Amino acid sequence: MNFLEKVRRSWQSQNSLVCVGLDPHPAKLPSVLSGKDALFEFNRQIIDGTAQWACAFKPQIAYYSAVAAENQLEKTIQYIKSEHPHIPVILDAKRGDIGATAEMYAKEAFDRYQADAVTVNPYMGGDTLEPYLSRTDKGVIILCRTSNPGSGDLQGVSSEGETIAMRVARLASKEWNQHENIGLVVGATYPEQIKVMREIGGEMPLLIPGIGAQGGDLEEVLKSGLDRRGKGLWINASRSIIYASNGPDFAEAASAEAQRLCTQINEIKAKI
Amino acid sequence: MNFLEKVRRSWQSQNSLVCVGLDPHPAKLPSVLSGKDALFEFNRQIIDGTAQWACAFKPQIAYYSAVAAENQLEKTIQYIKSEHPHIPVILDAKRGDIGATAEMYAKEAFDRYQADAVTVNPYMGGDTLEPYLSRTDKGVIILCRTSNPGSGDLQGVSSEGETIAMRVARLASKEWNQHENIGLVVGATYPEQIKVMREIGGEMPLLIPGIGAQGGDLEEVLKSGLDRRGKGLWINASRSIIYASNGPDFAEAASAEAQRLCTQINEIKAKI
Repeated sequence: MNFLEKVRRSWQSQNSLVCVGLDPHPAKLPSVLSGKDALFEFNRQIIDGTAQWACAFKPQIAYYSAVAAENQLEKTIQYIKSEHPHIPVILDAKRGDIGATAEMYAKEAFDRYQADAVTVNPYMGGDTLEPYLSRTDKGVIILCRTSNPGSGDLQGVSSEGETIAMRVARLASKEWNQHENIGLVVGATYPEQIKVMREIGGEMPLLIPGIGAQGGDLEEVLKSGLDRRGKGLWINASRSIIYASNGPDFAEAASAEAQRLCTQINEIKAKI
Repeated sequence: MNFLEKVRRSWQSQNSLVCVGLDPHPAKLPSVLSGKDALFEFNRQIIDGTAQWACAFKPQIAYYSAVAAENQLEKTIQYIKSEHPHIPVILDAKRGDIGATAEMYAKEAFDRYQADAVTVNPYMGGDTLEPYLSRTDKGVIILCRTSNPGSGDLQGVSSEGETIAMRVARLASKEWNQHENIGLVVGATYPEQIKVMREIGGEMPLLIPGIGAQGGDLEEVLKSGLDRRGKGLWINASRSIIYASNGPDFAEAASAEAQRLCTQINEIKAKI
């Protein structure tokens, strides 16, 4: 099954657009967890608590590599594959390098970690994305317009009637997407940009960070970003879900928060 | 000692502009090396063989992370720090993410691996570079105009009289370099761009990939890129040095190739 098909099935079967970000900061783990497998154990309980309300899981690799916990990331993804195989795993790594090195990053994401998709940075140009794109069963989620305040520094620069971010969306849609395995990252903090990228990108899935802690407006996001099927979005929440409680009930609290967000999204969808 | 001072001392004391890229592909190691420490052992011999002719070492993290060999990278950098402490280590990782995650990447590069500098991607904007830049004793080497054929896709787009790459150089020089710890990556394959970035970036160090396998012209690079002191460049060579021989003499061959490149650079410098 190719990536897009897997993604569409997960949107359908889960009836959810919520992507759960697995970014566990070692200093913020609930005190009930300790020992060498604490990160994995935290993730395992979050995953089991939220899987019912999630259409994707998105671990951020920096939270593991900063503390030499790559094995915890490996175990986390293996666990999702084993226990919740219908839910795609997006490895958030934002990789970008020339071809020979990009081959190694593709190997890292897809062979070592067995992720279904990886986020990548387009700054170096289309040829540097080829090693990921040629893995036709895998997804390649390209940074387009990010959620942070400084995203306009380069992405917002206009030339010949389009911004750099629009150019990324156009190249992704018209030139790079030969295998229909591209998605785009567009921040919830810029809903008008989501609308633009949906127009340029057609049915391309959009990964939307910036709901919750960063303040993106959910209704605006949905109005701007849903595709013709009423799907097409991974609406990511990380901190608001995984740190919903710091006590022994952290998994239940995460589950409740994922359910709340999933339900809220579906309610807004029903009325717009 | 801050990063720029360490770098200037290494240019002076080593009388070299050669940066040795430590990108050991596991499938290309000399057959005399095997076992779990083969990557480190390869690096150790390359380092000892080339240290006399090098002003920097630049390990590319993907070659380690793709094969779960982070410990080999840790040992490699520890070895340089211990045996050749006057030679700076640039961790080539091309990281880029929002603030909270960039903090973790800075921790990875500077605390876990103890690198003196890290390469980063500017696509997400100036605020995302702050967690690296605020480590004022460390270097932050920002992608500007890269050496690959597709680098023009975004970096070459012009707006209001400057390309995106020029904009990166300008922002780096005028806004982001409060702690004087920024360098720029400019590919040897675009010597006219090196000239432009030297003009915009002033005395900022330039990391120049693309000599050797990628075909950059050394004389053009030096004419375009040297600073007023006749320094200011890390001219990177990876494959041409580390794979100079595939036999038991690989370290001697690497040493000879590093010496050849260092000497060639100094001869060209003397006549231009």
